[in-house]
Amino acid sequence: MSPKLRLFLDHALHEGQAVPLGEAEANYLFAVMRAQKGTPVALFNGRDGEWEAVVDETGRRSGSLRVGTRLRVQAQPPDLWLLFAPLKKTRTDFVIEKAVEMGVARILPVLTGHTNSERVNVARLQAHAREAAEQCGALHVPEVAAPVPLMPLLDGWDDRPLWFCDEHLAGTRIHPPQAARGAVLIGPEGGFTDAERARLRTMPQAVPVALGPRILRAETAAVAALTLWQITCGDWR
Amino acid sequence: MSPKLRLFLDHALHEGQAVPLGEAEANYLFAVMRAQKGTPVALFNGRDGEWEAVVDETGRRSGSLRVGTRLRVQAQPPDLWLLFAPLKKTRTDFVIEKAVEMGVARILPVLTGHTNSERVNVARLQAHAREAAEQCGALHVPEVAAPVPLMPLLDGWDDRPLWFCDEHLAGTRIHPPQAARGAVLIGPEGGFTDAERARLRTMPQAVPVALGPRILRAETAAVAALTLWQITCGDWR
Repeated sequence: MSPKLRLFLDHALHEGQAVPLGEAEANYLFAVMRAQKGTPVALFNGRDGEWEAVVDETGRRSGSLRVGTRLRVQAQPPDLWLLFAPLKKTRTDFVIEKAVEMGVARILPVLTGHTNSERVNVARLQAHAREAAEQCGALHVPEVAAPVPLMPLLDGWDDRPLWFCDEHLAGTRIHPPQAARGAVLIGPEGGFTDAERARLRTMPQAVPVALGPRILRAETAAVAALTLWQITCGDWR
Repeated sequence: MSPKLRLFLDHALHEGQAVPLGEAEANYLFAVMRAQKGTPVALFNGRDGEWEAVVDETGRRSGSLRVGTRLRVQAQPPDLWLLFAPLKKTRTDFVIEKAVEMGVARILPVLTGHTNSERVNVARLQAHAREAAEQCGALHVPEVAAPVPLMPLLDGWDDRPLWFCDEHLAGTRIHPPQAARGAVLIGPEGGFTDAERARLRTMPQAVPVALGPRILRAETAAVAALTLWQITCGDWR
């Protein structure tokens, strides 16, 4: 039985290691979750797998854990990126959460012609990704990149297959490449502009993906497209 | 260009038809959305396709629309049910919304041994399903059934293939039947009980479905499993 508490800490993890806690972690463990000396906590750092630790010292703004045995070896997520146009706060948070659950390695907010919201707090989204990883049992916290405009990003795109979801495609079939790296691009609620769609269609790396006859919200489209990628190319195979 | 306003009305729709509005629809159209005489509204009733109508009479608690030309012929969604264990209010609403977007025909809340919440307001969920259908361009509003306990439901289950998502299955492969009818069962956050899992495993209609190595929240699991069903057996083929 794994511990109920689970924490990402950017610190080396091996048996017997003492791990110091910062103010935020101490507050979360001791004030919010009421952990006490001896309470088990699962730890991961994105490199060394998952470890069972116990609370060693408690404090208001600090504390430490003592690492015990390894629970799981490190498994890296597939080399999968999610590109999405930022939405309103709650929906953006939802996309981040879903991306983590679905095993995305890197999240790139992209600014499109019809992007609803251009204000992106990367640090807040990164913290949200970390919390989502702690909750869904992931061994890796995806990096949230700073937002970039879509068109220049496409101009410099390398040979990574880029699955783009386009509501104009209802009825077409996917013939995806069985590549071990990829990216999924979800457009904004208003859809891609004609120029963006034309640009995507000229790219040999672009893979148009149809997601059925109904209009999906961005977070639904993200989960659906990531499911198709994971089952075809990723760690759901 | 379809009208921006879209409404489900349980009323016959054909060209020239006058459609009376109830208090709720009149309030939505005229008070909330500020529609006026002549404003176009897309209408669907789950049977006759989608029609362009215009506001004919406005009022505080009533009004009427006049039906014009048909925009789309009726397409019935696949014969797909979603069974899910009710969650907290916001998450349950989310599952309903996702089920509608994903083209589910019938939604059945089921009470399992580890169900978090047993209070289900079916009328509220049904209204939420209707709003989701209006927003996602669906031509059908799924029925939301009254909640039933899972075990007796399984005892009386007919030959409809029942895809059940089980976090204990990570790594197994799906060999789904290519059936035109089906159901997807999403367990509660706490997982199925041993008795429920054993019961499911004895059913020849049951299809265990693995959704990757990470733990998915219920609404994520619902979208992922419905994606796999739609691409294999449904209207995404």
